[in-house]
Amino acid sequence: MSAAQQTAPSGAKSATDSEGRTGPVVISVDAMGGDRGPAAVVAGVAASAKKNSDIKFILHGPEAELTKLVARRRILSGRCEIRGADRIVRMEDKPSQVMRNGKGTSMWSTLDAVRAGEAQVAVSCGNTGALMALSMIRLRKLPGVNRPAIAVLWPSKNPQHFNVMLDVGADIRADAPDLLQYATMGASYAKTGLALETPRVGLLNVGTEEHKGRAELKEAHDLIKKHAESGAFEFVGFVEGGDIPGKNCDVIVTDGFTGNIAIKTGEGTASLIGDLLRDAFAYSPLSRIASVLALTSLRRLKKRIDPRRVNGGVFLGLNGTVVKSHGSADATGVSAAIKLAYELSRSGFHDTLAGQLAQTGQSAQSELPPRAS
Amino acid sequence: MSAAQQTAPSGAKSATDSEGRTGPVVISVDAMGGDRGPAAVVAGVAASAKKNSDIKFILHGPEAELTKLVARRRILSGRCEIRGADRIVRMEDKPSQVMRNGKGTSMWSTLDAVRAGEAQVAVSCGNTGALMALSMIRLRKLPGVNRPAIAVLWPSKNPQHFNVMLDVGADIRADAPDLLQYATMGASYAKTGLALETPRVGLLNVGTEEHKGRAELKEAHDLIKKHAESGAFEFVGFVEGGDIPGKNCDVIVTDGFTGNIAIKTGEGTASLIGDLLRDAFAYSPLSRIASVLALTSLRRLKKRIDPRRVNGGVFLGLNGTVVKSHGSADATGVSAAIKLAYELSRSGFHDTLAGQLAQTGQSAQSELPPRAS
Repeated sequence: MSAAQQTAPSGAKSATDSEGRTGPVVISVDAMGGDRGPAAVVAGVAASAKKNSDIKFILHGPEAELTKLVARRRILSGRCEIRGADRIVRMEDKPSQVMRNGKGTSMWSTLDAVRAGEAQVAVSCGNTGALMALSMIRLRKLPGVNRPAIAVLWPSKNPQHFNVMLDVGADIRADAPDLLQYATMGASYAKTGLALETPRVGLLNVGTEEHKGRAELKEAHDLIKKHAESGAFEFVGFVEGGDIPGKNCDVIVTDGFTGNIAIKTGEGTASLIGDLLRDAFAYSPLSRIASVLALTSLRRLKKRIDPRRVNGGVFLGLNGTVVKSHGSADATGVSAAIKLAYELSRSGFHDTLAGQLAQTGQSAQSELPPRAS
Repeated sequence: MSAAQQTAPSGAKSATDSEGRTGPVVISVDAMGGDRGPAAVVAGVAASAKKNSDIKFILHGPEAELTKLVARRRILSGRCEIRGADRIVRMEDKPSQVMRNGKGTSMWSTLDAVRAGEAQVAVSCGNTGALMALSMIRLRKLPGVNRPAIAVLWPSKNPQHFNVMLDVGADIRADAPDLLQYATMGASYAKTGLALETPRVGLLNVGTEEHKGRAELKEAHDLIKKHAESGAFEFVGFVEGGDIPGKNCDVIVTDGFTGNIAIKTGEGTASLIGDLLRDAFAYSPLSRIASVLALTSLRRLKKRIDPRRVNGGVFLGLNGTVVKSHGSADATGVSAAIKLAYELSRSGFHDTLAGQLAQTGQSAQSELPPRAS
């Protein structure tokens, strides 16, 4: 590590320095707002620091408490700056209130480090609605973006093992031009996050036939179809709920209401099956022996679908990258979210996305009637 | 069996005869329209006939083909009347077309046997949209019902092992009064289908806080809360996708768009985990031995979540009971749908539901502004 890298990060507008060498990625982490408190977040930060020497951190929350927690982790020595912020956004706080009174919270401070260019990515386990609301006012939307979206990776039958789904809850509404933007952003994310050259995008509906579904979905269908080429993705048309974990497409586009319910239904179903599987193996002495023999196999399965390991919704459409970790994330979950944040930053995802949006925007703008928003 | 029961059923308005004795339940079965053709349907009918001597059938489809298939099953001798219908509703047919031109199809004929009172329940594996459209014109909606709904049983963590969810696809729209009717119908179904005295009803949303979600959901929330007592259910308020397979409520109420996507996401996730589990057990010699030892446990698990064994969406809100079996149902699936149809008929579910709807309707009508529809 160079001397410069050992000091607290500042002015780190880009992870690449002026001579083209890449410095460490600086990640701004909100230590508060998660269900398990700052200790779990610091443990996750420490786990990431251990696995990857190329990351530095700015940690936001009550200074005394964080100083104590960080001091206990030798791996964080010289790699973790603490920014005191005594106020906390709670899970039950309304986004509108947080927008008005959020200054001084650890969440606000976390985003401001990205806004100031000191960090490349922000990570928070806090209140999703508040985080999106604050991200919109502190980072602002990318030019031409109407509604930012939250994208997640979802375990799937595809060779890349995951599909991208968006929006999973940034905004409960989405009209046809919004859904086109989601398609563009989701495809861009799949290119970086899943290393796919030409992602296949599907529009979520109640049937694959073109006459089915809501009117705005038919409009979105035609709009996305028209702009697939400029967005450098393949449009497979309407897909159904079963395609989210399926193999018919790589990116599933939907509004935040439907996407949120779909993802939570999927998580709940996986959790139910996990419980039933445990019961099944605990049922008899023979099945208990079987479970010991199958331990490695079951661990492999668990690793593949463990929500903690694919933890992190990415906010797309902002001037800056924000990763939303699960509120209930433990150290493993926080570390997975940091890994995702690191990879997005290192790959230059944000600049690619902004470029792609500008391109599709130009192509769409030239044909669409002006919109009121 | 009495002599009367051995003849082909006719005029069987109720399964209970004039002296209060219960005759066999007559089920009207559409042999066509499923992905696996009439042979799978007849196999399912035969399986049900074997398990339950209290059922008789009216089977609809091409007469020569069905006569041949039925003749091969000795168990069906004298218990299965065939009604010739040469036209078939295909999966790709639009409901609106089928409504205009559906006469002469096996689906139309299947519903008409219920309309005429010859059978108590209809079962079809065919096109869901067309089946609902034909059911609406042939059976008509129950007084006061605006939108009928499709309800399914979904595996859950609750002691009764299943939750009821509706609507899963009858209609992509639903306003607040519709959602109140779904709550009433779903609670009534849970009482009969899951033997629950006071079902807990939840309204599906993107969060459990009362300020979240779409405006019509907030309206529905207040409306359902107000009428929970007259509907004889407990209202737990907003629930999330994870509660569909969860234990926080017994009945999940939502519009047909959201419900359809949720159920298909859940099915897809279960299918993905099944695939991964198979892979995990096939991975090494040790894990293959484990899978043999765990065979009984895994079968128990499979039986609990096998979609074929909980096969059958029930159409609620019509003058007659219609069970929609999965289009891809095999004999096991068809037989499960017939079992459900039998149980609904035997329990007098339809009359209970109609009574409950009338009661809630009166209570709601007295307070609601008149609606245009």
